Amino acid sequence: MRLSQYLAPTLKENPTDAVVISHQLMLRAGMIRKLASGLYTWLPLGLRTLRKVERIVREEMDRSGAQEVLMPAVQPAELWQETARWDQFGPELLRIQDRHQRDFCVGPTHEEVITDIARNELNSYKQLPMNFYQIQTKFRDEIRPRFGVMRAREFLMKDAYSFHISSESLQATYQVMHDTYSRIFDRLGLDYRAVLADTGSIGGSASHEFHVLAKSGEDAIAFSDSSEYAANIEKAETLPPTGDHPAANQSLEKVATPEVHTIDQLCQFLSVEASQTLKTLIVVGQTEEKEPLKLVALVIRGDHELNEIKASHLPDVASPLTFATDEQIKQVVGCEPGSLGPIGLTIPVIVDYSAAHLADFICGANENGFHLTGANWKRDCQYTQTADLRNVIEGDPSPCGKGHLIIKRGIEVGHIFQLGDKYSESMGATVLNENGKAVAMKMGCYGIGVSRVVAAAIEQNHDENGIIWPDAIAPFQLGLIPLNMDRSEAVKNTAEQLYQQLQQAGYDVLLDDRDRKTSPGVKFADMELVGIPHRLVIGDRGLEKGIIEYKHRACDEKIEVPLDELMTFLSGKVSIK
Amino acid sequence: MRLSQYLAPTLKENPTDAVVISHQLMLRAGMIRKLASGLYTWLPLGLRTLRKVERIVREEMDRSGAQEVLMPAVQPAELWQETARWDQFGPELLRIQDRHQRDFCVGPTHEEVITDIARNELNSYKQLPMNFYQIQTKFRDEIRPRFGVMRAREFLMKDAYSFHISSESLQATYQVMHDTYSRIFDRLGLDYRAVLADTGSIGGSASHEFHVLAKSGEDAIAFSDSSEYAANIEKAETLPPTGDHPAANQSLEKVATPEVHTIDQLCQFLSVEASQTLKTLIVVGQTEEKEPLKLVALVIRGDHELNEIKASHLPDVASPLTFATDEQIKQVVGCEPGSLGPIGLTIPVIVDYSAAHLADFICGANENGFHLTGANWKRDCQYTQTADLRNVIEGDPSPCGKGHLIIKRGIEVGHIFQLGDKYSESMGATVLNENGKAVAMKMGCYGIGVSRVVAAAIEQNHDENGIIWPDAIAPFQLGLIPLNMDRSEAVKNTAEQLYQQLQQAGYDVLLDDRDRKTSPGVKFADMELVGIPHRLVIGDRGLEKGIIEYKHRACDEKIEVPLDELMTFLSGKVSIK
Repeated sequence: MRLSQYLAPTLKENPTDAVVISHQLMLRAGMIRKLASGLYTWLPLGLRTLRKVERIVREEMDRSGAQEVLMPAVQPAELWQETARWDQFGPELLRIQDRHQRDFCVGPTHEEVITDIARNELNSYKQLPMNFYQIQTKFRDEIRPRFGVMRAREFLMKDAYSFHISSESLQATYQVMHDTYSRIFDRLGLDYRAVLADTGSIGGSASHEFHVLAKSGEDAIAFSDSSEYAANIEKAETLPPTGDHPAANQSLEKVATPEVHTIDQLCQFLSVEASQTLKTLIVVGQTEEKEPLKLVALVIRGDHELNEIKASHLPDVASPLTFATDEQIKQVVGCEPGSLGPIGLTIPVIVDYSAAHLADFICGANENGFHLTGANWKRDCQYTQTADLRNVIEGDPSPCGKGHLIIKRGIEVGHIFQLGDKYSESMGATVLNENGKAVAMKMGCYGIGVSRVVAAAIEQNHDENGIIWPDAIAPFQLGLIPLNMDRSEAVKNTAEQLYQQLQQAGYDVLLDDRDRKTSPGVKFADMELVGIPHRLVIGDRGLEKGIIEYKHRACDEKIEVPLDELMTFLSGKVSIK
Repeated sequence: MRLSQYLAPTLKENPTDAVVISHQLMLRAGMIRKLASGLYTWLPLGLRTLRKVERIVREEMDRSGAQEVLMPAVQPAELWQETARWDQFGPELLRIQDRHQRDFCVGPTHEEVITDIARNELNSYKQLPMNFYQIQTKFRDEIRPRFGVMRAREFLMKDAYSFHISSESLQATYQVMHDTYSRIFDRLGLDYRAVLADTGSIGGSASHEFHVLAKSGEDAIAFSDSSEYAANIEKAETLPPTGDHPAANQSLEKVATPEVHTIDQLCQFLSVEASQTLKTLIVVGQTEEKEPLKLVALVIRGDHELNEIKASHLPDVASPLTFATDEQIKQVVGCEPGSLGPIGLTIPVIVDYSAAHLADFICGANENGFHLTGANWKRDCQYTQTADLRNVIEGDPSPCGKGHLIIKRGIEVGHIFQLGDKYSESMGATVLNENGKAVAMKMGCYGIGVSRVVAAAIEQNHDENGIIWPDAIAPFQLGLIPLNMDRSEAVKNTAEQLYQQLQQAGYDVLLDDRDRKTSPGVKFADMELVGIPHRLVIGDRGLEKGIIEYKHRACDEKIEVPLDELMTFLSGKVSIK
């Protein structure tokens, strides 16, 4: 491609409304432009990368034996009513009416549509397993779209849905998808991890997320330092502390703690470590219809963080997790949230394993302005149960039993689920089994955020000058910069000849043929900003010696390559697309 | 692909709600399934063809120098308000509101969005020309979606938009697009014509449609039998008859014609040819605001058809063409529509060239139950003007001056327009010209109905047994049918070996490996229905002689090919994908 004829509008300054690096760089490199909140146009440079990601995903899905289909973006409400998601889904589901006032939505996902196809077209266990995928534009009406294409309203997604006669078959395809995703992210050239995940609102029994590792990632991931174990921090289990419970040495004392409302203030006021204190949180309990509101106390160590997902999975706790209001707490306990503690509570008390292992701890006195010190379980108060309530922290023993945990940050770009029969049951998607009996099919679903991968790749691969693309998804692999092309015949001829030659050899080449009004400095800066991995500079001085200058985007070293050795040199550096 | 593991649900019977052949065959061949009115899922077989069409379109658009982009499907109302199309567009424009009650539409076309990008990113004539395209899902809320994917609500379209500093530059790119479209339809293997077209509601100065010829086509196209001339019948001009005006021989007579309301009845009643009669139609005239309603009479020969597009382009006639109601006619003329004639009318009378060339004609008397015979222009009545008012018919002289017209039917699959500055003016999309002055860019737009091409290809290429795909867009090029594969080791081994070998050679192969429960007859019928162009049958009897049977879908001839010559034989018949 000749840059002079190409729409690649680079920007020097960071756009003010772009917060994360990938959003900034995609705007600055001329990859995308905003049309409206959460709606982006992919300009030619950006789309080249998007299409390369799409191609790798398609090739590997095909290789896995999945069959590509294309379902409508606009879906009738009736199907969503069958699974009750028409009412359950929040306002992220863009509900619309057609000209005949019939209800539709612009699909954020396609479980209902594919299950409808499966129940119509599949009727015998002999046809199974089947795995269908599509690469398609989805719409999710985010309340606050942000981070550019990372959390846009309209985005490109690969979604796949598999159908099975048995859980064993589902597990086998789940493993194939796990391997396929690994191959996809390997080929994309990204540093990623597959991690255990919570199954969340989609439901089902097993689930892994695929994360691109990046310091800016929204998710925290826990790894074992001695095994393959990796899990989203939402999901990573903590083990009950081992060893004997420490003995109680102190006696319970009530101390005045005026103006103390937080753990930090408490530690400072009493000169104690947060790990010796307790944090008590009151949440809404699991309540049957028409029952009066129940509250439940959750107790963790002062230095730990509540894991809301784990808490919401407890049978006694309402899901999604709902914190009691100050008003409700006042009514039931009689104090403000900053003075809560487990002693004397008349509601169920669920205590995290680590908190339950403390002796001589400090906690709120359930009376404004007072705390208790030297408190001990059993002697001073009881709990209803112990549980895993907190986020893991670095250094925790790995739940796999081997080694200790390390925490890294990641961006979720893929998610695979074993759905079981959640959708097939509610929609009556059955096939006849070997005995001629109609049984609901087991289902799996498998997503990759294709457009999000592009942003995640940038979050992981950039420096202060711009993007550093992995070869496989660079919009162009090679950048050709002729110096003074419009003044030097030699440079011009060599540039034109090389441009043709490299393209014929199968490379994606971007030729910066802009005239002298664009300085060499700007050309170098643009090529770095856009992130072309391999750069060739053609200049009069080099040509006199028969030499071209090569530089990789990620290295400072410049290599002088004799012109007649260039093709051989490149074949060792750059793989043909 | 192994058919036993593939979702290709063929149907024996024609679905009752499918009217046109392509819709019937796409359902029967398992290419598509209906989700809701005008919404179709593309099943694996159908999608393979759709993607092949898409790939050819993309390759040729890239080759033409156009730059691929991807704009959001959901577009903000503000842009459409700038061009006034938010109000002008009918209910086909699916207007929606997001969760914040902001107005959007699901885009049926993208002139506004691309013009917004152009006005933001292009600022100098030096950047021009540029041509942007996308291949994207569009939505048009048709009042009565029909004919399957031919007139669906959601469909895949390639739309391109070019920007220019001058009309000359626009014309040059328009010609490049004309050539590109010709290459695309050549490569698709379709019999097509580029025809002059009316520019319609999109506006602009020049326009060609690309039609796939098929007897079932909705459009009529007029060709010269002696030149390259081709035009949509909407657009094809008629020439005024040459030679002297025939002389008046008869005298005007009023005859009673009870129960005669149509030209057919009139001809039968008086035993005359329709070509000797006149048909008079009353339409609404061009009326300024607050003026009282004007009516205009249009007069054509009884054997001709009014061309509504041509009529609506007349300065005195309202556009779009609106027929007067029976009530309005009664009020102004005093009779019913079946008794209308030009003689004695007090409203403007516009007469078609052929009608004006008649002598001694027969027409309504403007009095119920009476007609006039022996009528003549000038002597008996005057007209306001003559004009080209009718559709051409076969045998008319070609308006290019060479030869006579032939009429064929076609399906519109592409359309190219010179838009001029309609959108750039209203949206302020200007660049600086050579003199530093801001001028509105000239624009062109170029569409291909990608999903419609699939249906049109079937309308053109089928027989009573099913689809006959052109090689380039067949879902699979080769169909391999082993007979008794699950009983004969020799057949099974040869089939498996050939399947691998053919795939490695680069062919798309469909192996019908279904077991004995599917009879050979059903396998042959399915392969014909699905339309695989090249069929290979492997049987024990042939293998004993070292022979495979080859047959092309479109020929009856079966060819016995020695196994060891098969690859050479095929290389002459089937091009590698």
